[in-house]
Amino acid sequence: MSFWKTWFSNPSSLGSNKTSAVEELTAGYSGNSSTVKEQIIFSTERDLDLYELEELCDAVGWSRRPLRKVKKAIEHSFLVASMWQVKGNKKRLIGFARAISDHAFNATIWDLVVHPEFQGKGLGKALMKYILKKLRSEEISNVTLFADPQVVDFYKTMGFMPDPEGIKGMFWYPQ
Amino acid sequence: MSFWKTWFSNPSSLGSNKTSAVEELTAGYSGNSSTVKEQIIFSTERDLDLYELEELCDAVGWSRRPLRKVKKAIEHSFLVASMWQVKGNKKRLIGFARAISDHAFNATIWDLVVHPEFQGKGLGKALMKYILKKLRSEEISNVTLFADPQVVDFYKTMGFMPDPEGIKGMFWYPQ
Repeated sequence: MSFWKTWFSNPSSLGSNKTSAVEELTAGYSGNSSTVKEQIIFSTERDLDLYELEELCDAVGWSRRPLRKVKKAIEHSFLVASMWQVKGNKKRLIGFARAISDHAFNATIWDLVVHPEFQGKGLGKALMKYILKKLRSEEISNVTLFADPQVVDFYKTMGFMPDPEGIKGMFWYPQ
Repeated sequence: MSFWKTWFSNPSSLGSNKTSAVEELTAGYSGNSSTVKEQIIFSTERDLDLYELEELCDAVGWSRRPLRKVKKAIEHSFLVASMWQVKGNKKRLIGFARAISDHAFNATIWDLVVHPEFQGKGLGKALMKYILKKLRSEEISNVTLFADPQVVDFYKTMGFMPDPEGIKGMFWYPQ
């Protein structure tokens, strides 16, 4: 994991400051044995290609959602984080997550996804660290999420606690 | 509960439309035996007296929070719902809740509070119904919350499910 430890050294403000929206991983990405230089880049830029995002979500088997609503959700999220593989001048979206917030106390992370080809390399963790760093820089003190059973342990390793002091996550769907 | 059944008959849009921000309960409030006419009113108006809100939160024993942050949280909530007791020309804040949202898929309800003097009369349920109606009118299909152990059963009666399909609510706090 020592490859990633320098990712989070540059403090930057959230989305609105476009000049600092992209953070590069300057260390080489070890997952590829070819000689082409490969980088992993993180961004809070919201201007995503929705078809590329849909492709990423397809790759992990998520149900498709109307792009009109996805666009609206991205516009109204407090934080939009994306992770990119960069090889030469080619850029590929390999991870995504977003958070909604009251800009003061609480943020809830939704739609965290890492492309299956890039899973198991610590990149989900790296994306989550990036998100937590961004939320902390905005003084959000309570970060929540709803985890599917198979990823509860993953989030535990990131310091998330299920049901702290018996607090229950609850869902309501229209009848 | 038949007193309350007419509360939700007038569809109205969210906060931005000020003329419809207040919904009156025209049926008399049965909790008081005096002859002074008493009404319970619901509103999505954001222009709350923060000291009055703090007083309400004090009454249920919540830790105080900086008013500057409370103000910011209210400004950036998707929905702010308040419940008022009206007697003659006197208005008293007796309930509050707010929701954050991506304006498309998810909303999370925070800070639901009902003044102790008005608990056990179905008013928490009425406030929650009001909130759910507002969120549904905005096509939000997934409403979530984090419930303290002692109120899990209350939310169950409202149709909220804890850990549906094993999904876990998880919290992260800064170290």
